[in-house]
Amino acid sequence: MKILILGGDGYLGWPTSMFFSIRGHKICAVDNFVKRKIEVEFGVQPLSEIKNLHQRVKAWNAKSKNKITYKVGDLLNYRFLDKLLEEFRPEAIIHYAEQPSAPYSMGSHEKAVFTQYNNVIGNLNLLFAIKRNCPKVHLIKLGTLGEYGTPNIDIEEGWLNLEHNGRKDRVLFPKKPGSFYHLSKVHDSANIEFACRIWGLRSTDLNQGVVYGLYTDEIAADVENLSTSFHYDGIFGTFINRFITQMVSNNNLTVYGKGNQKRGFLNLIDTLKCVEIATKNLPDKGEFRVYNQFTEFSSLNEIADRILKVGKKLGYKKSKRVNVPNPRIEMEDHYYNPKNTHLLSLGLKPIKFDEKEIIRNIKFVEKYIKNLDKDIFEAKIKWSLK
Amino acid sequence: MKILILGGDGYLGWPTSMFFSIRGHKICAVDNFVKRKIEVEFGVQPLSEIKNLHQRVKAWNAKSKNKITYKVGDLLNYRFLDKLLEEFRPEAIIHYAEQPSAPYSMGSHEKAVFTQYNNVIGNLNLLFAIKRNCPKVHLIKLGTLGEYGTPNIDIEEGWLNLEHNGRKDRVLFPKKPGSFYHLSKVHDSANIEFACRIWGLRSTDLNQGVVYGLYTDEIAADVENLSTSFHYDGIFGTFINRFITQMVSNNNLTVYGKGNQKRGFLNLIDTLKCVEIATKNLPDKGEFRVYNQFTEFSSLNEIADRILKVGKKLGYKKSKRVNVPNPRIEMEDHYYNPKNTHLLSLGLKPIKFDEKEIIRNIKFVEKYIKNLDKDIFEAKIKWSLK
Repeated sequence: MKILILGGDGYLGWPTSMFFSIRGHKICAVDNFVKRKIEVEFGVQPLSEIKNLHQRVKAWNAKSKNKITYKVGDLLNYRFLDKLLEEFRPEAIIHYAEQPSAPYSMGSHEKAVFTQYNNVIGNLNLLFAIKRNCPKVHLIKLGTLGEYGTPNIDIEEGWLNLEHNGRKDRVLFPKKPGSFYHLSKVHDSANIEFACRIWGLRSTDLNQGVVYGLYTDEIAADVENLSTSFHYDGIFGTFINRFITQMVSNNNLTVYGKGNQKRGFLNLIDTLKCVEIATKNLPDKGEFRVYNQFTEFSSLNEIADRILKVGKKLGYKKSKRVNVPNPRIEMEDHYYNPKNTHLLSLGLKPIKFDEKEIIRNIKFVEKYIKNLDKDIFEAKIKWSLK
Repeated sequence: MKILILGGDGYLGWPTSMFFSIRGHKICAVDNFVKRKIEVEFGVQPLSEIKNLHQRVKAWNAKSKNKITYKVGDLLNYRFLDKLLEEFRPEAIIHYAEQPSAPYSMGSHEKAVFTQYNNVIGNLNLLFAIKRNCPKVHLIKLGTLGEYGTPNIDIEEGWLNLEHNGRKDRVLFPKKPGSFYHLSKVHDSANIEFACRIWGLRSTDLNQGVVYGLYTDEIAADVENLSTSFHYDGIFGTFINRFITQMVSNNNLTVYGKGNQKRGFLNLIDTLKCVEIATKNLPDKGEFRVYNQFTEFSSLNEIADRILKVGKKLGYKKSKRVNVPNPRIEMEDHYYNPKNTHLLSLGLKPIKFDEKEIIRNIKFVEKYIKNLDKDIFEAKIKWSLK
């Protein structure tokens, strides 16, 4: 299958490119390096040095019989995108190419505008380029569980069958996103659903939890050259990465607010398997399909405690969980029951965030802890934007 | 009250400016004339010549003791907007300043992108400028009933109390917009709801039906200089204006598709009264309030028939209703029950689209029928975008 991977230089985009390449698919990876630029602007960097896309593709192609091609370009450049689709004629497009940081989007007026402009218009350009060049393509779009917020009802997978005043309908699940970044994803999904409805496009929207993990088989075979990024900072970092890095560096684990907030999460390998499942299940013409993509959910406190418990066995005894003022504005005590039955029913066998996985992550952090910049742990951007 | 009217040169913006000015409010009207530019691009124009904003303000200020001030500027220019709010310090902002045509937004890739960029980023700029300069201001934002689409359930006013699997929540009403224009309004509302939730802004979102009518008291006092626009074309025209103009010019009334599609509508004077009611009811800090703003709803066929029936009495006997291929992609047979109880309970006394009102509109069209360009009746833009 010819697969176009948009955002191919990212934490997920690069492992996805290799994952599908080794399985015999023809891959074209595209990136505009906007995330690398933001890293430089904020002075944050992954814990281990990551080769650039040119170097990684070169290293991959030197050893693999399946070559990855790549293009440097921006979805905001419609002529580039249109030509790309016209020439490559993808059968599936995996679209990760968005500004991915919620804190970044809340950092200032300019950053909020950049996030919505980049994500919404980039995605809109993509829909029109698909319409013109390859209307039968399967658009697999990455969204996030954070789009839903924390409603007091079960979170269904994208659509909701509801009854109101004795009448029934199937509607897009009402969302309550938590940042201008999350809003941009909600806008994207609404635009994609419309394009499916009006033009008969086909799309799978993956509303994903927080991803952890560093090693796929492809990365493990050449860690030095093929690794993906591990962010523990206040812009791109996830709470799991931050907690582990704080523990390994003998700092306290900083949990935002009360820490009763719940989050869905999953292993990097499961992300790839979910995306693979999506590619194998083409929606009907005009279908806008949504899967919730996570394997576990827990409160922030529970996850911190789980990491600390494993850490203790390895000798990390100085760190404890501390609840710091929440930079976000969000409910800290809430009902949470997101569904993920679609991907499980299609064969996903989840990897659990258990002792073995936590140790794997700790070992990674230990290996690179000499690179630690502990000044970047802190969440400097406040949702209140004082 | 100091009221900023964004989109002050528009069909609604200009009558709104005079309506509040004569009632003693201090008005600043702002426009970037994007609609006038699109008129020129497509070669469409209102049936009666409309003076430009400079001329209309001059004519108004020459006779009124309450002067209107105005600024030429664009919401996409954040420095302009920020300075405007800093200097004028409005107590209410009535925001009409968006690309208002659904067909335009479906005309091409560039037009869809322009619509979403102009509307979403302009509105986002406004939210940040409000946050910085006047966070207590009442933002009154005009949306449309078309955002909801035609769900199989009653359309509540913006929010929905729902029960799902035995649990309850109050959520934003799930919308199914019918064009990239309508989508832009949905995105706006989502961004505004978030800004209210996070920053404590106050907003009333008015989801309005199709507006008809030409004469407010202020316009009637000086029709030559103070009139607002009457569009009957395929870009900015409404079906009511098109039907009346087709009848007066002895053409058939072109109803899109089966004509069983239902639309909400209201008189221009009722729009002004609704906006006035909104200004008198300040939402709480952090409240995102939604009113559905229409006074009647009917199918397209019913409205055409109503107009034809009145026309017959005046001697228009040649025209009949013809159902033409629908340029839009929409359900042509559907349940429709939008609620509008909020504005009625706050005192709105609706003007009906009855014989008297229809005759008023016919008389207007007769007066200017010499200006007719019947080539612009046709809906040249198709939703399918072949």
